[in-house]
Amino acid sequence: MTDLKTFLAENEDQFVDDLCELLKIPSVSTDSRHAGDVKAAGDWVADQFRKLGFKTEVIDTKGHPIIYAESEPVPGTPVAMVYGHYDVQPPDPLDEWKTPPFEPTIRDGNVVARGATDDKGQMLTHIKSAEAWIKTAGKLPIQLKYIIEGEEEIGSENLPGFIEANKEKLACDVVVISDCSQFGPGQPAITYGLKGIAYFELKLFGPKQDLHSGTFGGAVTNPANAISKILASLTDDQGRIQLPGFYDDVVPLDDRERKQFADLPFSEEKFMNQIGVDGVSGEVDYTTLERRWGRPTCDINGITSGYQGEGAKTVLPATASAKFSFRLVPDQDNHQVTAALKAHIEPQLPPGIRMELTDFHGAPGFVVPLDSPFMEAASKAIEKGFGTAPVLIREGGSIPIVMDFAKHLDVDVLLLGWGLNDDNTHSPNEKFNLADFQRGIKASAYLWQEISQMKP
Amino acid sequence: MTDLKTFLAENEDQFVDDLCELLKIPSVSTDSRHAGDVKAAGDWVADQFRKLGFKTEVIDTKGHPIIYAESEPVPGTPVAMVYGHYDVQPPDPLDEWKTPPFEPTIRDGNVVARGATDDKGQMLTHIKSAEAWIKTAGKLPIQLKYIIEGEEEIGSENLPGFIEANKEKLACDVVVISDCSQFGPGQPAITYGLKGIAYFELKLFGPKQDLHSGTFGGAVTNPANAISKILASLTDDQGRIQLPGFYDDVVPLDDRERKQFADLPFSEEKFMNQIGVDGVSGEVDYTTLERRWGRPTCDINGITSGYQGEGAKTVLPATASAKFSFRLVPDQDNHQVTAALKAHIEPQLPPGIRMELTDFHGAPGFVVPLDSPFMEAASKAIEKGFGTAPVLIREGGSIPIVMDFAKHLDVDVLLLGWGLNDDNTHSPNEKFNLADFQRGIKASAYLWQEISQMKP
Repeated sequence: MTDLKTFLAENEDQFVDDLCELLKIPSVSTDSRHAGDVKAAGDWVADQFRKLGFKTEVIDTKGHPIIYAESEPVPGTPVAMVYGHYDVQPPDPLDEWKTPPFEPTIRDGNVVARGATDDKGQMLTHIKSAEAWIKTAGKLPIQLKYIIEGEEEIGSENLPGFIEANKEKLACDVVVISDCSQFGPGQPAITYGLKGIAYFELKLFGPKQDLHSGTFGGAVTNPANAISKILASLTDDQGRIQLPGFYDDVVPLDDRERKQFADLPFSEEKFMNQIGVDGVSGEVDYTTLERRWGRPTCDINGITSGYQGEGAKTVLPATASAKFSFRLVPDQDNHQVTAALKAHIEPQLPPGIRMELTDFHGAPGFVVPLDSPFMEAASKAIEKGFGTAPVLIREGGSIPIVMDFAKHLDVDVLLLGWGLNDDNTHSPNEKFNLADFQRGIKASAYLWQEISQMKP
Repeated sequence: MTDLKTFLAENEDQFVDDLCELLKIPSVSTDSRHAGDVKAAGDWVADQFRKLGFKTEVIDTKGHPIIYAESEPVPGTPVAMVYGHYDVQPPDPLDEWKTPPFEPTIRDGNVVARGATDDKGQMLTHIKSAEAWIKTAGKLPIQLKYIIEGEEEIGSENLPGFIEANKEKLACDVVVISDCSQFGPGQPAITYGLKGIAYFELKLFGPKQDLHSGTFGGAVTNPANAISKILASLTDDQGRIQLPGFYDDVVPLDDRERKQFADLPFSEEKFMNQIGVDGVSGEVDYTTLERRWGRPTCDINGITSGYQGEGAKTVLPATASAKFSFRLVPDQDNHQVTAALKAHIEPQLPPGIRMELTDFHGAPGFVVPLDSPFMEAASKAIEKGFGTAPVLIREGGSIPIVMDFAKHLDVDVLLLGWGLNDDNTHSPNEKFNLADFQRGIKASAYLWQEISQMKP
């Protein structure tokens, strides 16, 4: 590996120059005025692969192109697939940027630009690591496949269909994604679990129009009163969800995981300061990290009913509605949650109230087994790249595309975040630490080696 | 009374002409472009009193003038005061009027115009009844005082202060107000009770900004979840309000009242059809009319939190707020309700949630004793005027000015509605039945006589 290490050290500036070239392209996928720029960014990525001699395709979709590339097969070793995206969020509000969003600027060891961490910088580490192998060893130790899309920031609408229609072509043993964060500065992490989700909107309809709350109040069922009762009934006063059978399929947190979470340098006080609260709450008998990462939860995301302006209006509202979602953990099935929710709400409906329940979207939770050999390979590679062994963490959020990979390709997914929590993702002055960029390239290069040494 | 009856019969057309003259003045109090019209309507009313030889004042306020008038004292008899208003609601939406709102039109036995029933037509009955006495008997059988204001539709801002500052001048034994409805067509009513109110806004503050419901959900107290629990806790599942001591001062409905309500020609089915529901609910062990008129109630008037647009957004909202109100009955004290509400909510506040409770406005409930001699007098007068004895009803709404009269002048208040529930008050094509207009004048004329025969 001497050649490779030397190559990486000698080419650091070139890697940054290449990243800045990509960051200059304002590939804002949601803005049709930037459609040409989005295409240009995709072509730039495709060119990177072509220069490495990879079989490269620019695949048109109904939206922005998917860039697909693959290196030569390496029989007897696993196949890894990298997923990333070359599109970015809009840069607004523009006047909050200290330097223009598409004029990448190096400041305090960071490159500041829209897309720096999300995901151009992180994604590029896995291309530059391949370049390092090819320019030193002449070839990669394993076969790599790449899907780099241009629609992540607008919901990846065309990608799931592409994956489902190309299972054979995309066949692989593991998917690697770098589009998230380390646990903290100097503490890399592997995110091995994501929550699933079941998101609903409940609308209650009462009288055919708003009524005077004096003339009719207390005698006509008030949809706002009714929805409060229903929403309150979703959890008990100890944070436990009350849908029938909701916990039946929940895989409990085992002692190893609970210890692992407890050993993390997590300060509840800092956490509370960061979000500006003087206390936290949640399901009894679990810690904050356990609640965030390993236990199903229920959050009301929005409620609306009646008069919401200044002052007082004595109205008995005709309707009330709420959006709320459950975050799920393995092996909960979001479809079963929908059924349980209906069974929970319907018997509660008071006289004179009609309901409409919309099932917005759902996905099961996802966890890579802690004893997956890919986890071990990634852990070793990150330790070599960053000089620190990664901690193993889970995430409370849901990344639908991960579920698509897991479901259609039946593979483990490694979420290797090179970013930091304060990178201003989706906000002005987005940044990516350049030392982490170089470490990410190094860790990625070692990852291909570690995977090549696994038994297939 | 032969002269008076004859006079009333012979002057019906003149009364309608006079009403139409007043209805032609667009005295929209909320619209500053109509300030001159509001003044003109007040002057028109003042002229009516001057023609009758009453001591008449046009009293300027910070807003629109109060018209005050009084007839000669009649020693040895009670003094009655009439309250009414000469201002009207805006006529919008204009294109829904079949004929222009300020061009009074006779149609199907009704006069159609803005202000026809609310309150120009109803108010005028009590001036025309005095005119009938003066033009036939040469004098009134009792002393009458009149307060006809021009700010009722904008909250009577200047009237309570006027009443409080002029207690001696306004001293009387009973206040008569016709600004509401009969029980139904052909069935006049005396409204002898109104509910009080205690109106609140509760705001809950959680994290300093909206959070991602995946990353933070279930571990940070969600203000929308918290407010649902608090709102749900205001009532039990049988419609009983759960604030400590809330029912302590409630005067129970006695058997006489319950029977009286039960005997009314009230169809629950028609009621449900009218408001478009297939069932009603409320406090157990009480009928719909008892709930509406005689029992305290709790209604949420508005809730707002988090994302309320189309589709799904996985947000943990930073705040949640709700407006809600209790309708009170005698002898509940709205200040005690405020204290009980605080005592109820504060211990429930979960960790990480701060609350702000705004006490918007409050008033106690009001009931004229059923054995009040003024009730008996009004009942007899209405039977003579309408040919049908009135039923005794209460109202679930609150009329703050009634509370001001009761509080500052220590009098009974008679709410004698000559209108109908379908008069389109505050809506396009407002109307007032002309037969009821004439009957109202007659009932009013008899009312002064009945009161004169009471012992002072």
